Amino acid sequence: MKKNPFEARLAAFAAKVAERKLDAAVVFNEANIMSLTGVKCDNACLLVPAAGRGKGECVFFTDFRYVPAVEREAPWIKVAEIKKLDGKKPLKVAGISFGGVGYESSVTHAKYLSLKKVFPKAKFKDVLADIRELRAVKTAQELQRLRAAEALNDEIWDEAQRRFKPGMTERDMARVIKHLMIERGDGEAFETIVCVGKNAAECHHVPDGTVWNGREPVLVDMGVKLDGYCSDMTRNIVPKRASRLYRKVYDLVLQANKLGIASVRPGITSGQLDGIVRRFLKKNGFGKEFGHSLGHGVGVEIHEAPWAAKRQKTVLKPGMSVTIEPGVYLVDNLGVRIEDLVLVTDSGCEVISHSAK
Amino acid sequence: MKKNPFEARLAAFAAKVAERKLDAAVVFNEANIMSLTGVKCDNACLLVPAAGRGKGECVFFTDFRYVPAVEREAPWIKVAEIKKLDGKKPLKVAGISFGGVGYESSVTHAKYLSLKKVFPKAKFKDVLADIRELRAVKTAQELQRLRAAEALNDEIWDEAQRRFKPGMTERDMARVIKHLMIERGDGEAFETIVCVGKNAAECHHVPDGTVWNGREPVLVDMGVKLDGYCSDMTRNIVPKRASRLYRKVYDLVLQANKLGIASVRPGITSGQLDGIVRRFLKKNGFGKEFGHSLGHGVGVEIHEAPWAAKRQKTVLKPGMSVTIEPGVYLVDNLGVRIEDLVLVTDSGCEVISHSAK
Repeated sequence: MKKNPFEARLAAFAAKVAERKLDAAVVFNEANIMSLTGVKCDNACLLVPAAGRGKGECVFFTDFRYVPAVEREAPWIKVAEIKKLDGKKPLKVAGISFGGVGYESSVTHAKYLSLKKVFPKAKFKDVLADIRELRAVKTAQELQRLRAAEALNDEIWDEAQRRFKPGMTERDMARVIKHLMIERGDGEAFETIVCVGKNAAECHHVPDGTVWNGREPVLVDMGVKLDGYCSDMTRNIVPKRASRLYRKVYDLVLQANKLGIASVRPGITSGQLDGIVRRFLKKNGFGKEFGHSLGHGVGVEIHEAPWAAKRQKTVLKPGMSVTIEPGVYLVDNLGVRIEDLVLVTDSGCEVISHSAK
Repeated sequence: MKKNPFEARLAAFAAKVAERKLDAAVVFNEANIMSLTGVKCDNACLLVPAAGRGKGECVFFTDFRYVPAVEREAPWIKVAEIKKLDGKKPLKVAGISFGGVGYESSVTHAKYLSLKKVFPKAKFKDVLADIRELRAVKTAQELQRLRAAEALNDEIWDEAQRRFKPGMTERDMARVIKHLMIERGDGEAFETIVCVGKNAAECHHVPDGTVWNGREPVLVDMGVKLDGYCSDMTRNIVPKRASRLYRKVYDLVLQANKLGIASVRPGITSGQLDGIVRRFLKKNGFGKEFGHSLGHGVGVEIHEAPWAAKRQKTVLKPGMSVTIEPGVYLVDNLGVRIEDLVLVTDSGCEVISHSAK
């Protein structure tokens, strides 16, 4: 029988735990558990013994409310019911004692203290980066879901533009998108950004009462969630009578976006990718005006590894997703960002955002 | 000039820090910072020196994106811009060294480790419960916002019932509510729960494709967010031809809900309140079928202190909010929960949910 893709990823993590010379790892983060098992559950602990060390099998601990669903969705994993996930019970159930334990440094400090009580003699080692690295390479099913989410995002953007009318506020326009996302998908993957005119110069502008007169540019950064996966895209409504400066900036950002896409290939690091686009904008006089990083992975969470940013050394591999989103922001004047989501392939990348730009 | 209510709460926290014999506390949690300053900011660190110890004034650290907004919204607090919040910079800016530092045990373990580097010689003490206790007593403005959010929730429930039609699925009905919450408020305070018929027996049921035939009971647990504050209410559509068992359970839960409301008064502990309602349901044969706690506070977050649950010793005070939500769940058969949000007053409580029950 063909192995479940999550089973393969979980096995890869158990091998990593062994490679780190740990006896086991405990995983609490919901997105990490979903990526290792395929099961979405907001109260769980996954115990992953090191592969090949005879420390028992993986156990998915959760409370009574979720046990039936987990057993149904992941019949290949052992499920155990416990009342409280941070007591001593999980390990008594597992019946093992460990000397080296992997944990996620993203757990709360309170949770860490409770883990110290459960494994009083253990040495703790942060394995969060290992899990994130495994999650970064998507399974075939996950790639399919990302394509579907991004295609729906394209469709919603298309419909939203038809519904936008002069006189609407940024908040009205954001609402149009939110409604469509609820109607056709599973809602927003993140708070939709709509910026009219010079508001686009603030790269984290929150939609407010600014009215669109139909002649100003509009920047929209949006992502719909579908079947547990996120999408992400930024587009700009370019008015027919845009200023010369706006057109110049728009064309430059579009070139930067295309350069980024053309540079994606297995073997390049995410930091190199960021550098290529950054140098291009700098050479063209807008280095300082590109104040954020080039992009990030997208999956169960809207922001995941790989991080396409300065000093990042993640080597891109086929199956990774990454956004290419250069932007130029001129304070109190204008802002342009063009963002596509791409999937790394054997020879380059597949662009899965299809909206006109 | 009248003191800003948040200024008073922050001063109370600084006094608490002194009482705990700490030099200062560092606060990272967004809801905690909002409750201590009135400012919503998702990348901030609030440094609160102990009152009366000459360790300087409070500083609101945030990055360049948010500095202008924070200065506008809280002119009474010192704002400092820093790039990274978990480096050594915040304390260099403050120019102080501390021996005893309060922190929130809800920070990630990674953040805790970075704090240890910033204050290498400090003793750390968890002050999360202190902040939560201060947050539990709402200011007059906060009480007004809770009333407004709950009133809007009533209005949306009213309109939603008019739009519900036989043949809709649970998901369709949840969507009706989500749309109304986006249209009239700031969206959902939590994922809306809609359960048709026996699905209500699962107290964490996720709306699915189950079709409502118009003759089954429907349980809806919903809360809209408005101006930064949450609301929370559970109602049931009781069909004219409900079964005798359903009517019996409904009447009992309604009595339990009214008993809970009548029992709220300053001086009683949240655990005693839970116990009164729990004993009533047990006496009437449904002790085990009430599997969750009686209620929780509501404010900036949907679940806050006080916790009306077994063994909780929070003494209720005027200005606290608490939900009264007894429920009875009969597996594979039916479920009823009736939830109101109340505000503790000098003599009892004010019920701010007004929908018929």
